[in-house]
Amino acid sequence: MNIKEEVRKMKKVSPRVAALPLETRDRALALIKEELNARQEEIFAENSKDLTEAEKNGVAPAVMKRLKFNEAKLADVSKGIDQLISLPDPLGKVTINRELDEGLLLRRVTCPIGVIGVVFEARPDALVQISTLCIKSGNCAILKGGRETTYTNRILFSIIYACLLEAGYPENCMLQAEQHNEIDELLQCDGLVDLLIPRGSNSFVQYIMNNTRIPVMGHADGICHIYVDSEADQEEALRIIADAKTQYTAACNAVETLLVDRSIAAEFLPKLSAMLQKEGIALRGTKEVTDLIGGETIGDDGFIEYLALIVSVKLVSSLEEAVDHINRFGSHHTDCIITESDEKAEEFMELVDSAGVYRNCSTRFADGFRYGFGAEVGISTGKIHARGPVGLEGLVTYKYKLYGHGQIVGDYASGKSEFHFKDIEI
Amino acid sequence: MNIKEEVRKMKKVSPRVAALPLETRDRALALIKEELNARQEEIFAENSKDLTEAEKNGVAPAVMKRLKFNEAKLADVSKGIDQLISLPDPLGKVTINRELDEGLLLRRVTCPIGVIGVVFEARPDALVQISTLCIKSGNCAILKGGRETTYTNRILFSIIYACLLEAGYPENCMLQAEQHNEIDELLQCDGLVDLLIPRGSNSFVQYIMNNTRIPVMGHADGICHIYVDSEADQEEALRIIADAKTQYTAACNAVETLLVDRSIAAEFLPKLSAMLQKEGIALRGTKEVTDLIGGETIGDDGFIEYLALIVSVKLVSSLEEAVDHINRFGSHHTDCIITESDEKAEEFMELVDSAGVYRNCSTRFADGFRYGFGAEVGISTGKIHARGPVGLEGLVTYKYKLYGHGQIVGDYASGKSEFHFKDIEI
Repeated sequence: MNIKEEVRKMKKVSPRVAALPLETRDRALALIKEELNARQEEIFAENSKDLTEAEKNGVAPAVMKRLKFNEAKLADVSKGIDQLISLPDPLGKVTINRELDEGLLLRRVTCPIGVIGVVFEARPDALVQISTLCIKSGNCAILKGGRETTYTNRILFSIIYACLLEAGYPENCMLQAEQHNEIDELLQCDGLVDLLIPRGSNSFVQYIMNNTRIPVMGHADGICHIYVDSEADQEEALRIIADAKTQYTAACNAVETLLVDRSIAAEFLPKLSAMLQKEGIALRGTKEVTDLIGGETIGDDGFIEYLALIVSVKLVSSLEEAVDHINRFGSHHTDCIITESDEKAEEFMELVDSAGVYRNCSTRFADGFRYGFGAEVGISTGKIHARGPVGLEGLVTYKYKLYGHGQIVGDYASGKSEFHFKDIEI
Repeated sequence: MNIKEEVRKMKKVSPRVAALPLETRDRALALIKEELNARQEEIFAENSKDLTEAEKNGVAPAVMKRLKFNEAKLADVSKGIDQLISLPDPLGKVTINRELDEGLLLRRVTCPIGVIGVVFEARPDALVQISTLCIKSGNCAILKGGRETTYTNRILFSIIYACLLEAGYPENCMLQAEQHNEIDELLQCDGLVDLLIPRGSNSFVQYIMNNTRIPVMGHADGICHIYVDSEADQEEALRIIADAKTQYTAACNAVETLLVDRSIAAEFLPKLSAMLQKEGIALRGTKEVTDLIGGETIGDDGFIEYLALIVSVKLVSSLEEAVDHINRFGSHHTDCIITESDEKAEEFMELVDSAGVYRNCSTRFADGFRYGFGAEVGISTGKIHARGPVGLEGLVTYKYKLYGHGQIVGDYASGKSEFHFKDIEI
């Protein structure tokens, strides 16, 4: 398949797709849900092929769980589609409605971004989630999933695409890429693809970011922090740290670094050490930490993303020092303060330059579903366009519509006419 | 000056600058206006040095006009600062206020982007406009203006920076780069600079976009179209085209290509030809156009940005063909339809994939001041983050603040707790 040629066709139909009414988009979603359920046995059979292949290749059990597409996963994606259908239309929202002068009306209206490329890990439910988010938001999409779920992806995509055509979508409205080398072709499609959303390992996302001129939304690493302030409820801190590290260790929102106020170190660190041992979490710390409670000693370059049952620990003398450490060594993903002081919490949440700034709860809450967005296409650690979990709102942009009756700028430059800027309620 | 070192210091103070209250930001703006006016003689004297230098170098009169900073320009920037002070605070707006569960409150709050690098043309008033927009929006900024206004930029910046310190800003909150090679150093500051806004020639902006990993907002070319539909008021069309081409020919929002419905060509083209001749505008057209009214014949690759008194003309058979031409050859800046048909206007404005889609008015209206934004830092033809003229709103992002009381994700995964997602009015 010549990706650029296919994407060019998609670019051409994308304005038509963008103009499809809500009813058509929702009808496509309803059809997809129906067909996925009607053809579940076929889907599960294809999924078995992927699983057999994966077993042969000695894929780890944790990954096997992600590859599986069964009744439970089908029920989850069906629920997700229902939720999407029930959400209000993200398109056509008038966010500015301003009379610039008599008979000269400016409207800013939300519209789809256009053509979005999503490269994601081997998780069949992700394919459904991402494609349906793109459908609801009026976008065309090129989807490239992990090769470990090739058979499952293929049948899921063919069902989704057939439903789109049945609902009245034009051909080339959605595309599946299957070959790994097609990713590189996709990266060359600047001017045709409006946005790339890569998901996956740090090095993979970094590769995408470094090798394309297309805007990229996503995150490479997730180095999340928990700062235990001197006024923390220490038992609560221990519970939150355990959850943030162990509830899903491989997630980008798992905690990687603990910062502990020096004034409570002698009291808190032994309790922390006991909890870490109980949970099977290894400790790496600065010298003053390991002198107190053991573990491997690390320097300034040791505050990395583990995605494993390991945590870094460092002492700080003040909230300011904690903030500076997080802003310098963190990845601007999600960072939390544990404190009973309202004042310190506000200062921390104001000064930490991250997509998520939390007080007294687990960093694992950083997720589109848990924020009530229905689903997410990914989490952004960039500050441009969308930040944090990206749902429907992150997949739209806007355009300015200006309605005139022959107005020219010359008349305003000469003073013959004058703007009066009246915002008009809709 | 070691730019990276300076920018690193700026990055460190940027959260403090972001947290400054509206009163401090507005006070800084008021001081700047006061000082610029109090020290106008000094400023004009420095500007004279630039003008003398420019004259020696044989700078064109049109450019000389832009280099000049006199009473009229000072009055304009003073008015701009007053307007900025009167605008509501773009920061701290709560755009989501949602109880995820009892005692677990999610807030999405607008905040500054952080550190912004702006590289702009030789126009002293631009330096004041850009820096004051960054101040109101809580951002730190690195400013690099054109070298033809070195003396003027230097005194303007030193006044602005002194006012910031007097208002209570920390050192390193704003920086002026003077050397051209410092632009390349700036491009290497990914991780420290959050956004680059280049203004200037097509090739310069393209160079910036191709040589940095920092997100870039702006536009390279501005190939704007006017489509004269079969149901156009032809006299109105001529007036609008004349304005869009001649009112400021070198601007990115000047029209470059006219598309004319074939069914009215025989009637409209002679009138167009007469108007173009009267206005001194040269015509380049496809063969069927030049066969009818003369001019240089061009092919598919001839639809370029002139920034001069030249316009391309092509006939199309339908609105669809016009839309396809614009989406393929345009630069997604600003495009206009001239028609008396409401239906066709809506279809055009829906399907054209540009930041500005206009009906019956000049493309020259695409401008932050004319949209009522007070001012603009630039115009974006990208679809990510901000589109069209970029004012205060384009200089902010948001963060998610999550307030808990010890909540952990494990309790929600196990079913012990459940989200209830209640949006709460503020």
